[in-house]
Amino acid sequence: MAISLRKARTIIRKSLEKGRDMGLKPLSVVVLDAGGHVQAFERETGAAPGRFAIAHGKAYGAVMLGMAGTAQMKRAEDQAYFMAAVNGVYGGQVIPVPGGVLLRDKKGAVIGAVGVTGDTSDNDAVAAMAGIDAAGLIGEI
Amino acid sequence: MAISLRKARTIIRKSLEKGRDMGLKPLSVVVLDAGGHVQAFERETGAAPGRFAIAHGKAYGAVMLGMAGTAQMKRAEDQAYFMAAVNGVYGGQVIPVPGGVLLRDKKGAVIGAVGVTGDTSDNDAVAAMAGIDAAGLIGEI
Amino acid sequence: MAISLRKARTIIRKSLEKGRDMGLKPLSVVVLDAGGHVQAFERETGAAPGRFAIAHGKAYGAVMLGMAGTAQMKRAEDQAYFMAAVNGVYGGQVIPVPGGVLLRDKKGAVIGAVGVTGDTSDNDAVAAMAGIDAAGLIGEI
Amino acid sequence: MAISLRKARTIIRKSLEKGRDMGLKPLSVVVLDAGGHVQAFERETGAAPGRFAIAHGKAYGAVMLGMAGTAQMKRAEDQAYFMAAVNGVYGGQVIPVPGGVLLRDKKGAVIGAVGVTGDTSDNDAVAAMAGIDAAGLIGEI
Repeated sequence: MAISLRKARTIIRKSLEKGRDMGLKPLSVVVLDAGGHVQAFERETGAAPGRFAIAHGKAYGAVMLGMAGTAQMKRAEDQAYFMAAVNGVYGGQVIPVPGGVLLRDKKGAVIGAVGVTGDTSDNDAVAAMAGIDAAGLIGEI
Repeated sequence: MAISLRKARTIIRKSLEKGRDMGLKPLSVVVLDAGGHVQAFERETGAAPGRFAIAHGKAYGAVMLGMAGTAQMKRAEDQAYFMAAVNGVYGGQVIPVPGGVLLRDKKGAVIGAVGVTGDTSDNDAVAAMAGIDAAGLIGEI
Repeated sequence: MAISLRKARTIIRKSLEKGRDMGLKPLSVVVLDAGGHVQAFERETGAAPGRFAIAHGKAYGAVMLGMAGTAQMKRAEDQAYFMAAVNGVYGGQVIPVPGGVLLRDKKGAVIGAVGVTGDTSDNDAVAAMAGIDAAGLIGEI
Repeated sequence: MAISLRKARTIIRKSLEKGRDMGLKPLSVVVLDAGGHVQAFERETGAAPGRFAIAHGKAYGAVMLGMAGTAQMKRAEDQAYFMAAVNGVYGGQVIPVPGGVLLRDKKGAVIGAVGVTGDTSDNDAVAAMAGIDAAGLIGEI
């Protein structure tokens, strides 16, 4: 199953709505497909200019490794040189913290990832999950 | 004047609608702000995975040089080594063809750019202009 | 539809067999999935050491642009600066010549690409098509 | 002595079989020649898309330094800045953990390396050794 643009839009809109409901700082949300390629992205008015790369880096590492942000962060804390080396082979494009959420279909196959950035990593992940739930998909934070 | 996320969404939606009305191939549309940073992006279902980079490259060169896609293409045809050198200093991120459209406010100041890719460069530019018109902004192709 | 490893193996074996039947130089064959990621690769004994990158570059451009090697070569001949710029945004990873063959499913959706290198570009493409036919898939050279 | 494609295939097949026998997650296996160049690679159906780069990074560091994954990991733990610097000169292509296995001939000369990724680093190395044994070669983990 691929991510349709329609599903990606729902994820983004509902993640941003959740951020506003929670009173978070302006958020940026990316949805990547199963190959790690950008399907859709929105950066809220007022968010810092460099937020695309952060959102992308959270989601990109999740897809490429098949490992969500929380697990990546644990690995970075346990074995910093490993995640540094991973970043080398992926062109420095990986941000190993929560807010990078794997998208799975009902059989457990990875069909993409969502990256949210702007507030704390944990709040970013909560906003992402709200969007993923609204789209009827399964997220792994 | 900055590009609000709301305006960026309008540009993208109306560009995609125009593409469907014209019977174009699946399109991808990016909106960059006045600093060349991604505000919003959507890739239609069925578009090739690498289309973010092409859309981005069209819009990025426009903002960074203050020169729209048509003028960049003329420069590339007249003086290929110059545009190659430009790409060197901009990290290889510039795609100098139509479909990269400068956004101007009513006083003529550049406030961002739109990049559209998926069909011929000329059709891409037509779709971009439809989105820009719908958002009440001035485009330079 | 994704490329299974089993299908990828068939494509590679039958492409190499075709090369031997035709008396071609030692070949190298890569199969990429729909996201441009390597599924399988083999380099025949005697092939030059750098052949992975050439095979990969032929297939990678095909997937990322949704455009097979023959069409890429025509574009490179008509508008050299455009394909040079494309290579900039894709990290210099595109080899725009025949031997990069798009894989499509029965509905026409791109499900990956095959890259063959070692002999002339045209012979490389013939070998690729033999492998693709044997796997029951549709190739676009 | 060079690695023939035939030997490389045996290593890959038997490593993957070992992984299935042990109930490991889907594996990816690369075989590099004595110059660090890819001879063959397979990624099992279900493995994350970015696994080629990880497998390659494990094997590449082994060949380039003449030091297997376990020794590289020890060095990274003892002297992280050294392995970071090594990655600088090798273009960020080194993953210094087990699963990168040196291949030696009977006289002890390095003739290539195997990189396995997908499960824990230690299990990856066990799978690699099974493949190397089946091919009648000597591995150093």
